[in-house]
Amino acid sequence: MSTFTLRDPEDIGVAILGAGRMGRTHIRTCAGIRNARVVAVADPDLAAAERGKAIARAERATADPLEVIADPAVDAVVIVTPTSTHASLIEACLQAGKAVWSEKPIALDLAETDRIVELWRSTGVPVQLGFMRRFDPGYVRAKELIDSGELGRIEQFRAYSRDTYPPPLEFIRHSGGSFLDMSVHDFDLARFLVGEVEEVVAWGGVLFDDRFAEGDDVDTAVTMLRFRNGALGVVEMARHSAWGYDIRTEVAGANGKVVVDAPQKTQATWSRRFGYEGDHYENFPDRFEVAFRLELEAFFASIAAGEVPTPGPEDALETLRLAVAARRSWREGRPVRLDEVTPENPA
Amino acid sequence: MSTFTLRDPEDIGVAILGAGRMGRTHIRTCAGIRNARVVAVADPDLAAAERGKAIARAERATADPLEVIADPAVDAVVIVTPTSTHASLIEACLQAGKAVWSEKPIALDLAETDRIVELWRSTGVPVQLGFMRRFDPGYVRAKELIDSGELGRIEQFRAYSRDTYPPPLEFIRHSGGSFLDMSVHDFDLARFLVGEVEEVVAWGGVLFDDRFAEGDDVDTAVTMLRFRNGALGVVEMARHSAWGYDIRTEVAGANGKVVVDAPQKTQATWSRRFGYEGDHYENFPDRFEVAFRLELEAFFASIAAGEVPTPGPEDALETLRLAVAARRSWREGRPVRLDEVTPENPA
Amino acid sequence: MSTFTLRDPEDIGVAILGAGRMGRTHIRTCAGIRNARVVAVADPDLAAAERGKAIARAERATADPLEVIADPAVDAVVIVTPTSTHASLIEACLQAGKAVWSEKPIALDLAETDRIVELWRSTGVPVQLGFMRRFDPGYVRAKELIDSGELGRIEQFRAYSRDTYPPPLEFIRHSGGSFLDMSVHDFDLARFLVGEVEEVVAWGGVLFDDRFAEGDDVDTAVTMLRFRNGALGVVEMARHSAWGYDIRTEVAGANGKVVVDAPQKTQATWSRRFGYEGDHYENFPDRFEVAFRLELEAFFASIAAGEVPTPGPEDALETLRLAVAARRSWREGRPVRLDEVTPENPA
Amino acid sequence: MSTFTLRDPEDIGVAILGAGRMGRTHIRTCAGIRNARVVAVADPDLAAAERGKAIARAERATADPLEVIADPAVDAVVIVTPTSTHASLIEACLQAGKAVWSEKPIALDLAETDRIVELWRSTGVPVQLGFMRRFDPGYVRAKELIDSGELGRIEQFRAYSRDTYPPPLEFIRHSGGSFLDMSVHDFDLARFLVGEVEEVVAWGGVLFDDRFAEGDDVDTAVTMLRFRNGALGVVEMARHSAWGYDIRTEVAGANGKVVVDAPQKTQATWSRRFGYEGDHYENFPDRFEVAFRLELEAFFASIAAGEVPTPGPEDALETLRLAVAARRSWREGRPVRLDEVTPENPA
Repeated sequence: MSTFTLRDPEDIGVAILGAGRMGRTHIRTCAGIRNARVVAVADPDLAAAERGKAIARAERATADPLEVIADPAVDAVVIVTPTSTHASLIEACLQAGKAVWSEKPIALDLAETDRIVELWRSTGVPVQLGFMRRFDPGYVRAKELIDSGELGRIEQFRAYSRDTYPPPLEFIRHSGGSFLDMSVHDFDLARFLVGEVEEVVAWGGVLFDDRFAEGDDVDTAVTMLRFRNGALGVVEMARHSAWGYDIRTEVAGANGKVVVDAPQKTQATWSRRFGYEGDHYENFPDRFEVAFRLELEAFFASIAAGEVPTPGPEDALETLRLAVAARRSWREGRPVRLDEVTPENPA
Repeated sequence: MSTFTLRDPEDIGVAILGAGRMGRTHIRTCAGIRNARVVAVADPDLAAAERGKAIARAERATADPLEVIADPAVDAVVIVTPTSTHASLIEACLQAGKAVWSEKPIALDLAETDRIVELWRSTGVPVQLGFMRRFDPGYVRAKELIDSGELGRIEQFRAYSRDTYPPPLEFIRHSGGSFLDMSVHDFDLARFLVGEVEEVVAWGGVLFDDRFAEGDDVDTAVTMLRFRNGALGVVEMARHSAWGYDIRTEVAGANGKVVVDAPQKTQATWSRRFGYEGDHYENFPDRFEVAFRLELEAFFASIAAGEVPTPGPEDALETLRLAVAARRSWREGRPVRLDEVTPENPA
Repeated sequence: MSTFTLRDPEDIGVAILGAGRMGRTHIRTCAGIRNARVVAVADPDLAAAERGKAIARAERATADPLEVIADPAVDAVVIVTPTSTHASLIEACLQAGKAVWSEKPIALDLAETDRIVELWRSTGVPVQLGFMRRFDPGYVRAKELIDSGELGRIEQFRAYSRDTYPPPLEFIRHSGGSFLDMSVHDFDLARFLVGEVEEVVAWGGVLFDDRFAEGDDVDTAVTMLRFRNGALGVVEMARHSAWGYDIRTEVAGANGKVVVDAPQKTQATWSRRFGYEGDHYENFPDRFEVAFRLELEAFFASIAAGEVPTPGPEDALETLRLAVAARRSWREGRPVRLDEVTPENPA
Repeated sequence: MSTFTLRDPEDIGVAILGAGRMGRTHIRTCAGIRNARVVAVADPDLAAAERGKAIARAERATADPLEVIADPAVDAVVIVTPTSTHASLIEACLQAGKAVWSEKPIALDLAETDRIVELWRSTGVPVQLGFMRRFDPGYVRAKELIDSGELGRIEQFRAYSRDTYPPPLEFIRHSGGSFLDMSVHDFDLARFLVGEVEEVVAWGGVLFDDRFAEGDDVDTAVTMLRFRNGALGVVEMARHSAWGYDIRTEVAGANGKVVVDAPQKTQATWSRRFGYEGDHYENFPDRFEVAFRLELEAFFASIAAGEVPTPGPEDALETLRLAVAARRSWREGRPVRLDEVTPENPA
C-alpha cells in the first residue's frame, strides 16, 4: 500500500494535469499560494502545457500525465482534465502516493466511484474534490450559522441554480445528464449544510432546448428532498439564463434562516428613469472566482498540516448517489429512496 | 333571478359583516374610500358591532347579518366573518342582489364552493374574494412584467410562505389543513402569475408542533406543480417563523425573471460590530397593509364602473381545487392530476 | 387668553382648510381615523370644498375658513392652504381655542413665526406642524436607535434630497428659496435626530434651470453643519431628479450608524440581460404615503390624550432659523452662526 | 536622460521593495500575474525580505533597495515602503530607467512631488501610483456610466470614508494629517469621476480620539468641493468605525446617478428575531482585495503594451494639491481656491 509523505510542507511540489481554461486558472492560483510550487504541467496539447508552464514558471511541460505523477519532485497533483479521465488519474496518484486535488466528479458511474473510494480508504492519501461552493465565504458563513446551532433545528432547504449558457450537444451526451452534471452542486450543498437525504422525487422537462431531449436529458427540473432529520428540501435547476448566473440557497430552522445569494456583481448600482439597476454575475467563473482560490489554498493548508482535506471521496460518492437517485426518480416517475441506490443497483 | 343595480356609483352604501380585528381594519379602510359609505355593521357580538359603527360613523349596528343584507340602503356587503359562514352569507347576498366582497375562501368544501359558483353565474351579481396578494404593488408589477411578455415563456415558479405564529388547535381542526388554509395563497399566485396547473405532488411533515399531527395536518410542506404550459413550480410552507412573516415568490422565464420579496419592513438599516441589520415584517397585517386597502378600492371602483371584479368565484374554485389536489397528494403519497379533483370526487 | 377644551376625545370634530390635492389626501385620511369626524371643508374654490365634503361625508362646505374656525362643532383644524396664509389661520385658531394641525412652515418670515410662537405659548392650544418625515417608520426607528444610546455619541450627520420635478417659476419666487422650501426638511431631521446646530456654511449654484437664477435662488446646494455637541453634518439638495424622489439620511456615532433610504418602491425586482432592476418612488406623495397618515393619527391621539403634540411651533421656529442661516451663508459667502439669526436680524 | 526599454513583455523581471504586510500581498499578487516574474525582494529587515523571496520563488533577497533597482534582471520596481522613502526610490528608478509602481503618495510635500513629476516628464519612464479604488470593478463601472454620458451633466459628488482602526500616534504625526492621509482617496475619486476642483472649504474636529489633537490633526472632517464644471461635492471622513470599513461614493447627474457602496462582505444574510443581518467588510484589505490585484495587472499590461500607465505622477500631484487645499481651509478657517496651492505656496 502506498502512503503519502510530504517532504517539505513549506515547499510543496505541484503538477497540474490539464491546461485548458480552468486549468490555467488553477495554475495561476497555485503560483500565488505561499507553500505551493508548480513543478510540471501536463496536457495532451503540448502547446497548452507549455503556456501553462510559462504562467507558473514551472520546470517541465509534457503531454503525459502519468510521467508527472511519477516525478519524485511532485508531491501533489491537481487534476483539471475531462471527467472521463478523473478516476484513472486519481487511481494513478493513489498508487504513486501523491496527494490529489481533482475537479468533481470522481466518475459519473457509481461502481467506478465506489472502487476509487475503496482504494482511497486503503491508502490514506489525501484527496480533495472540487466542490468549490463549500469554500465561497457566503456558504462558509451559512455553515457556521447552522453548525453553531443559532438557526435551531433545520426544517427547510431550498436551492436553485440557473446556468447562463447551455452546453454543447456532445457535452450533454456524456455529462451524465442535468441531475448529475448541474443539480449535483445543489445536492452537495444540501448534504453539506443540512445532512443526509433519505428520499427524493424529481420532475423534469425540456422547455427551451430540444437538444436535451436528443440527449435523453432535461433542461429544467425540480427535485424534492426528505432529509433523515425530517427536514424537507427542494432543488430547482434550469440550463439557460438570460440574466446571468443565478444560484440561491436557503436554509430555514426553528430559530432563524440563512440565505446565500449573489445578485450583484460589482459594488455599483445606478438609477435612471424612475428605477435602479445593477449587474448580475455572468457565469460561474466570476461568481466563484474567490472560491476557486480558497479551495486550493485549503487543500495545500490541509496537506501541509497533515490533516484530511475535505470534501473527500466519500462526499463525492454520497453526493453522486443523491444525484443518481434524483435522475432515477425523474426517469421512473416515482419517489426513490437513497438506500435503493447502490453500486450494485446503480442506474 | 336577482340582479345587481347600483343606485349611485359615487355613493355606495356598504354593510360590514364581522367587526373583529380584520373587520375593523376593513371598516376603517371603507371609511376612507371616496365612493363608499358604511351604512351598517353587523356582528353577533353587538358591542363589537357598535364599536365598528362608531369607527365608520355608520347608521346602524346589529347582531343580525341577514337584516343588513336586506336593508335597501345597502348596495354592497363586505364579509369578514368566520370561514364556515362565508357560503351562506354570499348566497344571501346573491339572492338579495347585493354586491359581495368576501374574505377567502367561499368554503373549504368543493361541492359547496361549486354550488355558490353556479348560483353566482346565474345572477351576475359582482363578487370579489379576498386574495389580497394580487393587489400588493409588488405582485401587480410582477404580473405586468409577465403579461407584457418581457420575461418570455415562463419556465419556473417558486414560492414560499412562513407564517409567524402557529394557529390555535381549534383553528387547525377546522381550517381544512395547511394546504387549504395557508399554501392556498401561493397556489392562487401560481394561477395568477403563470396559469393553470395540471398535476401536483406534495410532501408534508410535522417538524415542530405536534398539535398539527393531532389535527391530521402538517406544519411544514412542499408541493411540486406542473403547469399546463409545461412550466415547473414549487410551493413551500411552514407554520411558524422566528424571524417574522416570510414570503417570497419568483417567476423565471426564457428572457427574464421577477422576484417579489419583502425582507425589510422600515426604510431604516443600521450597522454595529462589523455587520448591518434591519427589521422584517412581523406578520401579514403589516406586510399587506397597503394591499388590504387596494383590494377594497379596486372592488368599489369595479362595481362603480359596472365591471366584473376579480378575483371572483371561479378563481376561488380553481384555487381551492389546486389546494385540494395538493392535500390529497400528501395524504395518498402519489402525484395527483387536477382533473381528478371534482366536486363529485372532492376529498 | 383662549384655552383648548376637547368635548369628546372619542369624537373630535375636524375642519379641513384647503381642498386641493394634498387637502383631499388629508380629508381621506381623517375620514379613516377612529376618533376624528370631518365636520366641515373650506376652500376659496367652493366646488373643491364640496368635493372634499363628499369624500368625508362632512356636514358643510364653505369658501370661508374663518367661518369654520368659529364653528362650535369644530374642535380641531387641519390647515392645508398656501404657505402665505398659514400664520393668520393659525392665529385665528389659537384665538378661537381650536387645536391646529398645519402644513409647515408657520411662515417664511422669522419675525412672523416668532410672533405666532409667542401667541401659542400664551394660549396652550395644541399645534402640530407637518414635518411628516418624523413619522415615517424608518425615521422613527432611526430616532429610537439614537435615543437609546445604541449608536454612542453622534459624530456625523448626512442627508440629501432630490425632488423629482422643479416647481413653477411663480412658486420659486414666493417659496423663500430652496434652503427654506426644500432643505428645510433635512434641517428639521438634523435637529430631530442629532440636536441643535451652532454654525453653517452653504454653497449653491444654478446648474440646470435658469428660472432659479431669475428667482434669486439656487437649484443645487450643499450646506455644512456644526452641531452644538461637536458633530459635523452635511445637507445636499437638488431640485430635479430624472430617477425619481431621492432622499437618504445617515447618522453615524461612536458605536454604530443608522441609514434611512428608500430606493425600492414596490417589493418586486426583475432581472434581464445580465442585470437586475427595480422601481424608485416617483415623488414625495408615494414615498411618504404612510407618514402622511401617521402624522395625523399622532395629532389626534395627542390631543385626545391631553398631550402636547410634536413637532410644535418651537420646532418650526428653530428649523426655520437653521434654514435662514444657510440661505444667509450662501448669499453672503461666509459661515453663519445660528445665534446671529434672530427675529430682529432675520435676513 | 534615462529611457525605459522592456526586454520581454511576456517575462517582466520585478523587484519588490518592502516586504511588510502589504508588501507580501503584492508579492503574492505578482507571483500570480502571467507576464511578471519576481526576481528580487528588498527590505531593511532581511528576514522579511527572505520570507518575501520564498513566497514568490524569487532569486534574491536583500536589505538594499538601490542594489535591486540597479539589477539588470529587474525591469519594473514595486514600491511598498514607508511614505517618506517613496520620492527618493522613485527618483532612483527613473534614473535607472526602471518602470515604477508605487504606493501613493509620491510625497507629502508639494515641492518634492512637483520635483519628481518634472523628472518623470523628462524621462518618460512608466510610473503608476497605488490609488487602488480606481481599479475596483464598482468604480470602473461608475466611471463607464459617467464617461458614456448616460448620467448627463454631473451635478453632485458625495463621498465618505470611515476607517475601521485609528492609526498609532507616531503614524498620525508623520502622515500629513487626515486630509492628506485619508480623504485623499476620496479627493482622487472626485477628480477621477467628475474632474478638477476649483475651490474647497473644510471643517474638522477631534470628536473621539485626543491623540489627533496632539498630532495637530482631526479625527472627523467634512470638505465641500466646487468643481470647475460647476458641480458641487462633499467629502466626509472619520478615523474610526465600530461597524467596519465604510466607504460610499455617489455621483448624480442630470439624467441619472451611480452609487458605489459595499455594505455586504459575504453573499450570506441571515434572519432571526424579526430582523435580518449581514457582515460588513472589516477593513480596506478585504474590501479592496480584488482591486489590489487588478491595479498591478493593469500596470504590467500597460508596460507590456508600451502604454502610459494611469494614475500617474500628475494625478498624484493634482490630488495632493486638493488635499493640501482642504487642510489649509481647515487650518485657516476659510475657503481655499486650488490655484492658491502651488509648490511655492505649499502649506
